[in-house]
Amino acid sequence: MHFTSEKRLEDGVLEREFTLGEVPGILWTPESAAPVPLILMGHPGGLGRMHPRLVARALSCTAEGYAAVTIELPGAGDRPRLAVVDEARADLQRALKAGEPVTDDIVDRLVLPLVEKAVPEWQATLDALLALPGIGGPVGFSGGVIAIATRLAVVEPRVDAAVLFAGSYVPRGILEEARQVTTPLLVLLQWDDEGNDRQQALDLFDAFGSKEKTLHANLGGHTGVPRFEGDDASRFFARHLK
Amino acid sequence: MHFTSEKRLEDGVLEREFTLGEVPGILWTPESAAPVPLILMGHPGGLGRMHPRLVARALSCTAEGYAAVTIELPGAGDRPRLAVVDEARADLQRALKAGEPVTDDIVDRLVLPLVEKAVPEWQATLDALLALPGIGGPVGFSGGVIAIATRLAVVEPRVDAAVLFAGSYVPRGILEEARQVTTPLLVLLQWDDEGNDRQQALDLFDAFGSKEKTLHANLGGHTGVPRFEGDDASRFFARHLK
Repeated sequence: MHFTSEKRLEDGVLEREFTLGEVPGILWTPESAAPVPLILMGHPGGLGRMHPRLVARALSCTAEGYAAVTIELPGAGDRPRLAVVDEARADLQRALKAGEPVTDDIVDRLVLPLVEKAVPEWQATLDALLALPGIGGPVGFSGGVIAIATRLAVVEPRVDAAVLFAGSYVPRGILEEARQVTTPLLVLLQWDDEGNDRQQALDLFDAFGSKEKTLHANLGGHTGVPRFEGDDASRFFARHLK
Repeated sequence: MHFTSEKRLEDGVLEREFTLGEVPGILWTPESAAPVPLILMGHPGGLGRMHPRLVARALSCTAEGYAAVTIELPGAGDRPRLAVVDEARADLQRALKAGEPVTDDIVDRLVLPLVEKAVPEWQATLDALLALPGIGGPVGFSGGVIAIATRLAVVEPRVDAAVLFAGSYVPRGILEEARQVTTPLLVLLQWDDEGNDRQQALDLFDAFGSKEKTLHANLGGHTGVPRFEGDDASRFFARHLK
């Protein structure tokens, strides 16, 4: 892990850009004498474009005494494109425009390569961060591509709680893997998400093997998650990470 | 409205039993110089049996600065039985034991007479309470038979927000009426409620016409609502009643 820039934000929060191998990321840490718990923040890809929203989310984490980290999604932002995903995205757009069903094949080609690449990258990020003196545990995961978060929760015992956003396509195989998840979950669903299948989201919630799982569904489209859900997520993490 | 008993509870909260016509009820009021908002507390019937749980709910209302009131359900507790409802309940038990489907006819006979009788009783209770000097508004509704709460939200503009428990049968007609509801809603659903149809609960949530509606679904059976949902309900009311 190489830190490439450092900036002081409000309340003494330190924002540091880094690279871990070929993966760029950003770490936010609050001022703290003792090691702090960590929240891994997922996003839809494009660190540059997402930066203002990521900073806002990070500052609400640091205000609660967590460090927050995010890494670039495979094939997004300044990272090399993933041809297979770009092709699948084109096929998805064609299907949506033609009013045709989005096939399992398209969803698999669109999402699985991201899962395969991103999950070990998150794990390497965890290895590197938990080796830093200021960062302890427990660890939460929040948002981003739900298929990535699901696989990570299956393979990574260091994730202690996750807030998932049911706002992207889920390959059938991931729906099956969800049964192995035992991490406490808060799942957010936008009831009228134009780019998401509500029934599939409910099936995914049903599939998770976790003993504590809560679904928060709100009226509105993909980007309309109400502000009060941020507070609810913060209280969910407080119950599990403090 | 005749007060029939009066008792001082913790923190100066006043518990008063009353009758309004033939309907018995209980009112809890916090110490307050100014008129307080009011929460109508629904329950499954049987004020005596429910009393300990009702007191606990009422005290969490008064702690937030609300008055709380509940009235006995038609046909329950010390009120005269409703033969048609008792018959429907027997038919329901027979159907469940035999593993037969619960027909719309049974649900209508079980629930609609309660709705028809209880809704004007809640309205009369509101009339009487809002005429008391210590009770102002706004007004919230919380829990109880969801079909009663739905009809009340349709016909009673003085209800400003409602926390509904999707834990009882819903007649088809009420599902249609739900489209006319515009009150902000928080709907609680127990994902594995043995005596409830999950899909019907999701259909009801979908049907509500309210612009702000949130569903909180949790793993577990009918009586397993997690304690943190009480805090969430309290924050929901704080957003809408304060």
